[in-house]
Amino acid sequence: MTTSSQIRLAAYPVGEPGDDAYESVTVELPELEEGQVLLRTIYLSLDPYMRSRMSTAKSYAAPVAIGDVMVGATVSEVVESRAPERAVGDVVLADAGWQSYAVVDGRRTRRIDPAAAPVSTALGVLGMPGFTAYAGMRVIGRPKPGETVVVAAATGPVGSAVGQIAKIDGARAVGIAGGAEKRRVLLEQLGFDAAVDHRSSTFVDDLAEATPDGIDVYFENVGGHVTEAVLDRLNRFARVPVCGLAAWYNATSVPEGPDRFPGFMRRILTKSLTVRGFIQDEFAPTHHAPFFEDMPRWLREGKIRYQEDVVEGLENAPAALRGLLNGAFTGKLLIQVGDLPPTLG
Amino acid sequence: MTTSSQIRLAAYPVGEPGDDAYESVTVELPELEEGQVLLRTIYLSLDPYMRSRMSTAKSYAAPVAIGDVMVGATVSEVVESRAPERAVGDVVLADAGWQSYAVVDGRRTRRIDPAAAPVSTALGVLGMPGFTAYAGMRVIGRPKPGETVVVAAATGPVGSAVGQIAKIDGARAVGIAGGAEKRRVLLEQLGFDAAVDHRSSTFVDDLAEATPDGIDVYFENVGGHVTEAVLDRLNRFARVPVCGLAAWYNATSVPEGPDRFPGFMRRILTKSLTVRGFIQDEFAPTHHAPFFEDMPRWLREGKIRYQEDVVEGLENAPAALRGLLNGAFTGKLLIQVGDLPPTLG
Repeated sequence: MTTSSQIRLAAYPVGEPGDDAYESVTVELPELEEGQVLLRTIYLSLDPYMRSRMSTAKSYAAPVAIGDVMVGATVSEVVESRAPERAVGDVVLADAGWQSYAVVDGRRTRRIDPAAAPVSTALGVLGMPGFTAYAGMRVIGRPKPGETVVVAAATGPVGSAVGQIAKIDGARAVGIAGGAEKRRVLLEQLGFDAAVDHRSSTFVDDLAEATPDGIDVYFENVGGHVTEAVLDRLNRFARVPVCGLAAWYNATSVPEGPDRFPGFMRRILTKSLTVRGFIQDEFAPTHHAPFFEDMPRWLREGKIRYQEDVVEGLENAPAALRGLLNGAFTGKLLIQVGDLPPTLG
Repeated sequence: MTTSSQIRLAAYPVGEPGDDAYESVTVELPELEEGQVLLRTIYLSLDPYMRSRMSTAKSYAAPVAIGDVMVGATVSEVVESRAPERAVGDVVLADAGWQSYAVVDGRRTRRIDPAAAPVSTALGVLGMPGFTAYAGMRVIGRPKPGETVVVAAATGPVGSAVGQIAKIDGARAVGIAGGAEKRRVLLEQLGFDAAVDHRSSTFVDDLAEATPDGIDVYFENVGGHVTEAVLDRLNRFARVPVCGLAAWYNATSVPEGPDRFPGFMRRILTKSLTVRGFIQDEFAPTHHAPFFEDMPRWLREGKIRYQEDVVEGLENAPAALRGLLNGAFTGKLLIQVGDLPPTLG
């Protein structure tokens, strides 16, 4: 009999999700049925979308039910298997959620090749965030050589890939992030052409200086005051892929006026803008294949780099999610729930 | 020597453009230079975009300068020609503006074939409004059979073509217009599947009833309270071509809150919407050829019908433009400035 430490949703939080939004429990897992595997969680991915799932507001996915284990993608080790396609010792990508062990359908896991790259990348640059950047740029952003691409949360797993794909495409990459240290990472480690601190009092002017030819692609993954500043600099025919609005996820009320909606529509009209929301899985059928060809090659060639922030211990996930929504982390945020297998450690 | 009656812009109006925004003058036109033609205006087209040109707010086109003749497309007769490509008696499409006679470069005119359709259609269903509908639907809206297409100002030259193209594409066409008479026109004369009166106190409920399966394409040409009601009913992956925002053109200040911009972005994200502004000439290089093949054929086959409202006399253009922005007209608004040539009358 295996026990699992779980973090469940206790209540739909209002505003920032405090500790009282969660409850920690330890449960005994059932015996495996035919087709199932027992997984030991190594890494749990924390991502901004999780805040949306802790709400009954209409969205593209159903909310987590009160009392359910919090959702999340994991890199896990198969410790027991009744699924023909998975062997004990396999490292897999799964949706095991916020828990130390999980029983899942073997077909709902994907084997990770530990020889190709660190297994944690399956949650970042080689996983959902990396694919979000790739698909959003290939299908919607489509920068031409010499154009200017702007992305916020630019040191994060989506933003860092967006900027580096822009460079691969011959465009100018401008990253927006909070604080001097993130600016340094953008310029020195991730190869952005310019970096702007959105917390600076001179942010709007700094953005103008960093985008002398305007903005042709704004990859929207934050919302808030960054979006407002960017909109003023969009060129005619600019494209705005919208994959996230983290700055607004904690919002508790309809914001006060003035009402900027008519002005936004007018800008869409007069600038012939394309604004397109997307969830990455929409493009999986058409773009997974080229992604899994391009991205590992770019990693090997050093054209794409990535940063990870690893927080130890499942019990620290609630505080880490708050930090994620507040911009406290630089790279891809992972919770180390269990050790790597000795062969990979 | 030919004299021309002109209406010029006298001042940039605030809000609705009153008579004092214009001045009427009579001028003597210069002798023709090589390559020029002298045109006699038959029809002047009035279109909502004209309000935008009477403003220094940033837009896709420069404002009309104070003292300049108001801009506008015309159907005109060539009464004198020093252009090899144009003969006296030709009926042409030109940008002659709000005046009874004009001297223009012959190459900036297009000959109209009076045998193909009434020459007035060059300003409507076979002209810029018809092409706006056609290109917006072919490039952005792209309705699939069985989908629901909604358009406002639906009896007008753009809206009526949008709805009828939707029907040709096998989609369900729902028109929004103001008043019972326009509803009747939509249902009885233009073949819409449903029609909703946006002036009714039950508008929001009526729209819901008319779109039981939600909305897949919202062809945006009005803005205002219609847009707000439509947004709530957009389906996942809905497309919103934005070609006009007439309801907001007279706006004199930033509207009061709440600020609906964040909610709109969130809807774009969670519904994977495509919102795309456009000006029809962007698509002329790729879509003029199929338009001038499809649309005349559809007219001949009775698949596309159109309505015209003809106001007599150039001096009535200012009041007519106000009426246009207030929804006072049903069909394509034309000012009859001069008589048709006897052969066409």
